[in-house]
Amino acid sequence: LNFIRYGEGNYVEFEAVTSLHKDLVATYVMVAVFNRVDLKQAVSDALSFATKALEFGIKNIDSVVPEVYASSIIDAERFKVINELAQAVNTIEENSQLIADLIPEVNMNIAYSLPKHFLKNLNDVAAIPGRITRVGNSVKAVSPPEFGASKHLARALMKVMEHSPEIRSIANIRFDTSILKIIEKLGYTHSFYDRSLEPPEIKSVEGATIPWGVGEAIKRVGYVPDVIYHKGDYGKEAMIAVLGRDPNDVVRKLLNIGRALKESEIRRWC
Amino acid sequence: LNFIRYGEGNYVEFEAVTSLHKDLVATYVMVAVFNRVDLKQAVSDALSFATKALEFGIKNIDSVVPEVYASSIIDAERFKVINELAQAVNTIEENSQLIADLIPEVNMNIAYSLPKHFLKNLNDVAAIPGRITRVGNSVKAVSPPEFGASKHLARALMKVMEHSPEIRSIANIRFDTSILKIIEKLGYTHSFYDRSLEPPEIKSVEGATIPWGVGEAIKRVGYVPDVIYHKGDYGKEAMIAVLGRDPNDVVRKLLNIGRALKESEIRRWC
Amino acid sequence: LNFIRYGEGNYVEFEAVTSLHKDLVATYVMVAVFNRVDLKQAVSDALSFATKALEFGIKNIDSVVPEVYASSIIDAERFKVINELAQAVNTIEENSQLIADLIPEVNMNIAYSLPKHFLKNLNDVAAIPGRITRVGNSVKAVSPPEFGASKHLARALMKVMEHSPEIRSIANIRFDTSILKIIEKLGYTHSFYDRSLEPPEIKSVEGATIPWGVGEAIKRVGYVPDVIYHKGDYGKEAMIAVLGRDPNDVVRKLLNIGRALKESEIRRWC
Amino acid sequence: LNFIRYGEGNYVEFEAVTSLHKDLVATYVMVAVFNRVDLKQAVSDALSFATKALEFGIKNIDSVVPEVYASSIIDAERFKVINELAQAVNTIEENSQLIADLIPEVNMNIAYSLPKHFLKNLNDVAAIPGRITRVGNSVKAVSPPEFGASKHLARALMKVMEHSPEIRSIANIRFDTSILKIIEKLGYTHSFYDRSLEPPEIKSVEGATIPWGVGEAIKRVGYVPDVIYHKGDYGKEAMIAVLGRDPNDVVRKLLNIGRALKESEIRRWC
Repeated sequence: LNFIRYGEGNYVEFEAVTSLHKDLVATYVMVAVFNRVDLKQAVSDALSFATKALEFGIKNIDSVVPEVYASSIIDAERFKVINELAQAVNTIEENSQLIADLIPEVNMNIAYSLPKHFLKNLNDVAAIPGRITRVGNSVKAVSPPEFGASKHLARALMKVMEHSPEIRSIANIRFDTSILKIIEKLGYTHSFYDRSLEPPEIKSVEGATIPWGVGEAIKRVGYVPDVIYHKGDYGKEAMIAVLGRDPNDVVRKLLNIGRALKESEIRRWC
Repeated sequence: LNFIRYGEGNYVEFEAVTSLHKDLVATYVMVAVFNRVDLKQAVSDALSFATKALEFGIKNIDSVVPEVYASSIIDAERFKVINELAQAVNTIEENSQLIADLIPEVNMNIAYSLPKHFLKNLNDVAAIPGRITRVGNSVKAVSPPEFGASKHLARALMKVMEHSPEIRSIANIRFDTSILKIIEKLGYTHSFYDRSLEPPEIKSVEGATIPWGVGEAIKRVGYVPDVIYHKGDYGKEAMIAVLGRDPNDVVRKLLNIGRALKESEIRRWC
Repeated sequence: LNFIRYGEGNYVEFEAVTSLHKDLVATYVMVAVFNRVDLKQAVSDALSFATKALEFGIKNIDSVVPEVYASSIIDAERFKVINELAQAVNTIEENSQLIADLIPEVNMNIAYSLPKHFLKNLNDVAAIPGRITRVGNSVKAVSPPEFGASKHLARALMKVMEHSPEIRSIANIRFDTSILKIIEKLGYTHSFYDRSLEPPEIKSVEGATIPWGVGEAIKRVGYVPDVIYHKGDYGKEAMIAVLGRDPNDVVRKLLNIGRALKESEIRRWC
Repeated sequence: LNFIRYGEGNYVEFEAVTSLHKDLVATYVMVAVFNRVDLKQAVSDALSFATKALEFGIKNIDSVVPEVYASSIIDAERFKVINELAQAVNTIEENSQLIADLIPEVNMNIAYSLPKHFLKNLNDVAAIPGRITRVGNSVKAVSPPEFGASKHLARALMKVMEHSPEIRSIANIRFDTSILKIIEKLGYTHSFYDRSLEPPEIKSVEGATIPWGVGEAIKRVGYVPDVIYHKGDYGKEAMIAVLGRDPNDVVRKLLNIGRALKESEIRRWC
C-alpha cells in the first residue's frame, strides 16, 4: 500500500502493483500541481490516469510499458460515441413519422458501445436516459445520450461483441409479425430466442436473461445477425433488437423497416 | 337536411333534428358575423354549439330546452382538468425521488376525466402524451397534459365511472409484491383481475380487455377500490392502477406508497 | 361583513355588497357539498363564483341580475386562449427556418388576451414562460403557454385593446431596417414611438413606458396599425411588435415577414 | 498537391506540406481499412488526423515530430469540457431560486474553452445553444452544451485567455448597481469598459467590439479580474461577465452573488 500526502494531514491510500504505478502517479500529480490544479483533484485524476495507462499498456513477461495516452484515447472515444449517438437521435426525431409505429410499450432505446478494447462494463455503453418515446404521431428522445443509461441494451451488446466486436450499436423496437415479415423481405438476417426455455439457474441471476438469450440466438444461426427477437414471456413484452456497426447503421435499418411498414399499411387500406 | 350558404357557392350541409337546432345555428352565426369572425369558422362553431346545447338541454316529452351555455361549461371543465393535471405532474416531478421506483417498464401515466355528465368518449379524458418516464433517479413528464392522450387509462376510467362517477382520476404504477404489501399496510382498498381468464369473445375486440378487467375487479369486491391490479399475461407487464377523485387525490396516494416503499428498502439494508 | 362557518371553528369572512352576493355563495356551497367537494375548497370557489357572477351581471339602477355562468364563460375563454396559442407556437416551431432570423437578443414572445370584456389585469393575458428562443438555426418555445407569463406584451396589448378591442394578440421580433422595409413592402400598416421622448413623470412609474409608447404610436397614425416599433434607447434593444386579431393572424404575418427576409437575403448573395 | 484514390474513380486531393504528411495519411488510411471503416470516411478522418498531428507536433528547424495522439487528446478535452459544463448547468438549475434574479433580458449563457494550446477559433469554446432562460421563478437551460454555441462569450474568452490562459470559463448576468455593490462587497476584483468610447474603426468590424472592450477592461487594472462589466449603449443592454478557471469556479461565484442579492432584498423589506 502507498500513500500520497497533500496539504495538512490529508492523504489518499492506493495499491501500486509495481513501482511503475507509483512513478506514473507521482509524475501526473507533479504536472497537475504545476498547472495549478487543485491537489485533491490532481491525486484522484492521477490514480485514474495511472490505472488506465497500466491496464492498456504493453504487457511483457516481467514488465509493462505504460500507455500514457490511454486516458485521452478513452475520453476521445467517449466523445465520438456521444456525438454519433446524438446525431442518430436527431435523424430519428426528424423521421418521426417512420419511427412512431416501431415504438414498443416499454419505449425504444438505442445504445452505442466504446470499442471492444475499452469495453469493461455496463457504463462503457451509452444510451438515452428516459428512452425515446412516442408523443402523438411523433417521437422524442427524453434526454441527451449518456454512458450507463441502459442496462438491458448494454448487456445485449456486450454479449454480441464477444462474437463480433465491430457490431457496437443496438436499438429495440416493437415486436409484431408484420414487422418480422418486413425484416425478412428486406433481406436482413435474423435469429431469436425463447424466454420460456431459459434454465432456472440463469433465471435466478439478476441480469443474466438477456446475455443468455442473445447467446442462444447467435448459436442458432452461427453468426451475429442484423436482428434478434424474442416473443415475450409472462409479464414481458415481446421485442425486436436491431444491430449495426454504429448508430448510423442501426438508424438506416430502422428507417428501412419503418418505411416498408408504412407502405404495407397503406397497401392494406387500398 | 339543411344548408348554410356562405360566400360564393360555399355551403355546409347539416342534419337538424328540430327547427330549434336550425334556429340555434342561425343565431350563433349571426352573432359571430357581427363579431367579424371568419364565416367558415362561424358555421363550424355554430354547429358544435347547437349540438352541445341540444345534447345537454332539458328534455321534455315533445321538446328540448337548449342549454346554450353547454359549450362554455364543457370548455371551462376542460380548462380545470388540464390545470389540475399539470399541477399534479409538477408535484410528481418535485417528488421525483419518491416516485422513480414506482415507474413501470411501460412508463407511468396519470389521467383525469371530464365530469361524468360530459364524458362521451376517450377524448374526454386528459393524460400526458409520451407519458411520465424515469431519467436516472428522477422522473420527467414528456409533455404537457392533453385530452385524448391515453387510451388505456381512459378506458379504465370510463368503466370505473359507470360505478362511481366521482372517481375521475387514475395513474398506473409498477406491479411488485412488495408494493402490494405496502398498499395493504396503508389501508388502501384493492381488487384485481386475472388477464388469463378473459373470455375469447372479449379478447377479440380491440380495446375491450381493460374495461372487462376493471369490471371484474369491481364486481369481486362490490365497489370501486383505491387500487386495481393485474399480474400480467404473456407479453403483458403486470400493473397496478391507483384511483382517486382528482389528480391531487391520486398523487397523494402515490407519494404515500412511494415513501413507504423507500422506507421499507432502507430497513431492509440496515 | 359576513361569515361562513365550516367544520369545527373554521370560518371565512367575506364582504357581501348585497344580500344577493350572500345568496349566491350559499347556493354554490350547498351544491358543492352535495357533490362531496371539500368544504374549504367549496367556500373559496363559491366566493370567486359569486364575485364573477355579480361583476359580469346585468346592472340595473338598483339591482343586479347575476350572470351565474360568468365563471364558466371565463374559464372556457381561457381554455380557447391557451389552445390557440399552443397551436400558433407549433406553427412557429414547424417553420423554424423562417422565424429564426426574427428572434431578437431578448428573445421573442407571443401573447393572447381574453376578450376585452374579461380583461381586468396582466394575468388575463397568456404568453410563453421563458419565451421563444433561437437554438442554432431553429426556434423553440421554452414552455407551454400560461396566463400572466409576459408583463411587457400584456401591457402593450391592454393599451392596444383600449382602442381596438378585437386586436387581442401580439408578438415581438428583432428590429432591423431591412425588416422594416419588408413590412412596408408587404403593405402592413405601421407606426412607432421614440423612447427618448418619454416624459420623466412616466419614466418614474414602473411599467408605464410601454403603454405610453404604444399610445403615442397609435395617436401618430390615428388607428391601431399592424406593426408598432421603437428604435431602442440606452441599454434597451430596439424592437418591432406585430399585432393581430388572434395568434394565428399574428403568426401568418410573422411567416410573411420571415419569408420575405429570407428571399431578400438570398437575392443579396446572387 | 497529392491525391488519394479510393474505389472506382473517386479521389480526394490534398496539399501535403511535407512527405511526412503524406505518410501519416497513408498509415491512417491503412489502419482504417484494416478495421473495415468506410473508405471515404477513412480518407477524411486521415486528413484531419495528419493535420492535427503536424499542427501540434514538435517543430525542429527543418523537421516536425508529429504528435500522433493530438486528435485523441483534443477530443478527450472536448469530452471533459462538455461534461463539466453539463454539471455546472445542473448546479445552476438546482439552485434556480438563487440564479433567477441574475438572468438578463438577453438571457444568460455560460461558456468553457478548450485549453489555450488547442484554442484556435470560436468553435473551440462550448456554451448552451438557446441559452439559460428564466421560467417563472426558476431557470432552465434550453439545450445541452455544444461547441460553437456562443459567439459573444467565445470572443470575450479568447481575449481573456491571451492574458490569462488558465481563465477558461465565463458567464454573463444582468447588470444592476445593487449587483455591482454585492460583487464589491464579496471582494471579487472587477473592471469595466465604456462602449461609447469604442473607436469607429473597431465598431465597423463585425465581432470586434467585445474583444476591444475586454482588452480595455484588462488594461485598466493590469490583470484579468473576476468580473468585467459595461453599462450598455444605445440599443444594447448593460451586462456583467463573471470569469473563472472552469464552469464550477464560475458557478460558485454566481451562487455567492445570487445568495447575497437575495439576502439584501430580504433585508430591504424588513
